[in-house]
Amino acid sequence: MKNFSHIDDDSNQPRMVDVSDKAVTRRTAIATAIISLGKQVMLGLKQGELHTKKGPVFQTAIIAGTMAVKKTAELIPFCHPLPTEAIKITIDTNDAFEAVVTCEVTVTGKTGVEMEALTGASVAALTIYDMCKAVSQEMVIRETKLIKKTGGKSDYTAG
Amino acid sequence: MKNFSHIDDDSNQPRMVDVSDKAVTRRTAIATAIISLGKQVMLGLKQGELHTKKGPVFQTAIIAGTMAVKKTAELIPFCHPLPTEAIKITIDTNDAFEAVVTCEVTVTGKTGVEMEALTGASVAALTIYDMCKAVSQEMVIRETKLIKKTGGKSDYTAG
Amino acid sequence: MKNFSHIDDDSNQPRMVDVSDKAVTRRTAIATAIISLGKQVMLGLKQGELHTKKGPVFQTAIIAGTMAVKKTAELIPFCHPLPTEAIKITIDTNDAFEAVVTCEVTVTGKTGVEMEALTGASVAALTIYDMCKAVSQEMVIRETKLIKKTGGKSDYTAG
Amino acid sequence: MKNFSHIDDDSNQPRMVDVSDKAVTRRTAIATAIISLGKQVMLGLKQGELHTKKGPVFQTAIIAGTMAVKKTAELIPFCHPLPTEAIKITIDTNDAFEAVVTCEVTVTGKTGVEMEALTGASVAALTIYDMCKAVSQEMVIRETKLIKKTGGKSDYTAG
Amino acid sequence: MKNFSHIDDDSNQPRMVDVSDKAVTRRTAIATAIISLGKQVMLGLKQGELHTKKGPVFQTAIIAGTMAVKKTAELIPFCHPLPTEAIKITIDTNDAFEAVVTCEVTVTGKTGVEMEALTGASVAALTIYDMCKAVSQEMVIRETKLIKKTGGKSDYTAG
Amino acid sequence: MKNFSHIDDDSNQPRMVDVSDKAVTRRTAIATAIISLGKQVMLGLKQGELHTKKGPVFQTAIIAGTMAVKKTAELIPFCHPLPTEAIKITIDTNDAFEAVVTCEVTVTGKTGVEMEALTGASVAALTIYDMCKAVSQEMVIRETKLIKKTGGKSDYTAG
Repeated sequence: MKNFSHIDDDSNQPRMVDVSDKAVTRRTAIATAIISLGKQVMLGLKQGELHTKKGPVFQTAIIAGTMAVKKTAELIPFCHPLPTEAIKITIDTNDAFEAVVTCEVTVTGKTGVEMEALTGASVAALTIYDMCKAVSQEMVIRETKLIKKTGGKSDYTAG
Repeated sequence: MKNFSHIDDDSNQPRMVDVSDKAVTRRTAIATAIISLGKQVMLGLKQGELHTKKGPVFQTAIIAGTMAVKKTAELIPFCHPLPTEAIKITIDTNDAFEAVVTCEVTVTGKTGVEMEALTGASVAALTIYDMCKAVSQEMVIRETKLIKKTGGKSDYTAG
Repeated sequence: MKNFSHIDDDSNQPRMVDVSDKAVTRRTAIATAIISLGKQVMLGLKQGELHTKKGPVFQTAIIAGTMAVKKTAELIPFCHPLPTEAIKITIDTNDAFEAVVTCEVTVTGKTGVEMEALTGASVAALTIYDMCKAVSQEMVIRETKLIKKTGGKSDYTAG
Repeated sequence: MKNFSHIDDDSNQPRMVDVSDKAVTRRTAIATAIISLGKQVMLGLKQGELHTKKGPVFQTAIIAGTMAVKKTAELIPFCHPLPTEAIKITIDTNDAFEAVVTCEVTVTGKTGVEMEALTGASVAALTIYDMCKAVSQEMVIRETKLIKKTGGKSDYTAG
Repeated sequence: MKNFSHIDDDSNQPRMVDVSDKAVTRRTAIATAIISLGKQVMLGLKQGELHTKKGPVFQTAIIAGTMAVKKTAELIPFCHPLPTEAIKITIDTNDAFEAVVTCEVTVTGKTGVEMEALTGASVAALTIYDMCKAVSQEMVIRETKLIKKTGGKSDYTAG
Repeated sequence: MKNFSHIDDDSNQPRMVDVSDKAVTRRTAIATAIISLGKQVMLGLKQGELHTKKGPVFQTAIIAGTMAVKKTAELIPFCHPLPTEAIKITIDTNDAFEAVVTCEVTVTGKTGVEMEALTGASVAALTIYDMCKAVSQEMVIRETKLIKKTGGKSDYTAG
């Protein structure tokens, strides 16, 4: 069985994995977070935000998520700091009154960026929550997951 | 219909809500994030972590979540900075191979702490993901939501 | 002559001014930063941004400025950390191809928020620069100053 | 006409520009910020600070500006994080009662450092303002601009 | 025997102590850090720094320590964020080739500031190390401790 | 005699050393911080923490120290930001009622990581202090120093 790489076998203490001997490659990761807004919030957004397609709620979420990607190593204790080279966050809506945040991150480095993509998607979703919570607090971030990663030892695509 | 309080009616631009005239009260919020670990990760955790009940994965997540609560106003653009007075994060597991993070935050201030509780729960769940991802990347943070808040204009309890 | 309050008379070393005995009052400050964009950038903005009045450049600047207000005590060595209660940033344009950023900050505390207002206006202007610099690097932030402050020992209004 | 590179053509949403395919080169940028102190502040500084040439006001500003350079990607939403290799800030005064901050930044990377230089100069000027504001609040940061950059697709020197 | 207040008795997990019911009082703490510089570093400092009494090494350390005080709750996982009202750092030298950093912090709040004073003294000492390490790496920060605290349930003075 | 590399010879002002022309090599540094806990604290730890060898105090300190390593360039004014590749912190106890924190840092870069190792060890020790201070405030961090560094112009091992 695979090991928990963040835990030192000898001491059972957590530590940052040593990546100094790994190859520098171009790595990407895509994650999504789906936030269930409910009918009332979605209606409000459609009247303003979605009509113009560049209203403040989603744009604020995109900016917050992008900035959070750059803070990942500050938030997740054993994440490696990485010089992010591209971040693209998009937000779509669907008929189930949901907003779907997609966050794609690219780096040329020694370790992957799945935590960066997941963190960016999560904080964008939390920002949508914050900006709509005066309308309703019934919102649920109902699915945050990794969709795809490339460039490491093995690629990954969600089944 | 309620307004989107973070958006200025005149300019349609986002802004921080003015809370300077609100009353200083004791406010609490509780949020949860449920992460579906899958059988393989749960088995690994049970062999180490859950046996001793203080193993490194959950404890690291508690610490990361606590520190993230204190960073909420740095992550969410229009959140007010608040002098947090208590943060308690607990993590339980269930038979569906899930870990349930609960984050409770208390402050004496002019505005609520639901974003702090949601951010703490989210970052704790992301940290569990990070520490277990060498075992599996199928994990999904499948539900992040507000459970309860007290001390503001109106209390809230999830239905 | 007034003293440089941040410099200790005895040691000639800088230090944070002791405000522990000052009264808690409601304090506001307004600062502006004017950025000269030039004709080419302004034309580009008018074709997209200014037509819709909520395009991404100015909105990104508003968000960045708001977040920078909350970071003031982290940037300016002897500034006191303050629980900001309201931040409002607006951006207007004029016929001289300039954008005028106005940043208003409110706090209930023991010391004023002029540095917060100046920092918010500055970082909003820097963000406009960043987002338009692919079009031209001739832009100049040509005036950053305090417009008004209230609530301290003496109010101030720019002459 | 050149594009606003930070804005995605398809979605009209802001994003971080993808620099993953750009060449790693040695890049430098020099920016200045001129702060008009006024006669009274300059007189005070000359009696202490300028006499010794290493008094606390300018030195504090140099340190604050240097630390701000390292925070640029945290302040400007779509700036790339970069491993700064050299930062040099100097402050001179002139007969018009002004202090002229010059900030030079060097990096070996895939994108330029003009925002780093501009941010360092701005925060150094704001710090001078903070440390002298007990004497006068009439100060104006009256010109912040890029002087020179090298190492990118095209060099730039202010006309 | 007294409890470890940061550890929850039931779960044996760490948490932030709940201070929401504590009284708001004026609290101070003083800590010191003594750094043994050695003869060679001290000689170099005396030729520049100590002659003028405001040279760059000690002043940079004072500024770094002051800024670190404001970051204490970001560094120490279970520290409460506090609105610091005064920070004073001084640095003296003695005949044993040592520099003695003293850091005094004041706050009006619900919990003490000993960690803030200790963190400020530690980071000031680390900054002295950084700025002198080109001369020698034999330096040792040989004593960091709390000297005095007032304003809490019980005052403390080092024996 | 060696120079103080952080101080510019011409201006006597501090600055970040220019490392842009230095070679990229694999660099490591090891530092320790020894905290004298006293009998009472050690007894308390032995009853819980040391019995299980993974109790919350030391683990919290390891996490805080690891996160502080990543913040070194934010804390020490003229430190270069570096993409840390490995961080390992261990904590042992001895018969003199002391805890010995050892922090080892690895990077592939143009400058050494001794400040990162020293900062990580210091903040881990401060965190132990914070978590045990309800039991006693007599603790002293009595020795923080560099043990070894490799990969730069000259290696170093404490005598």
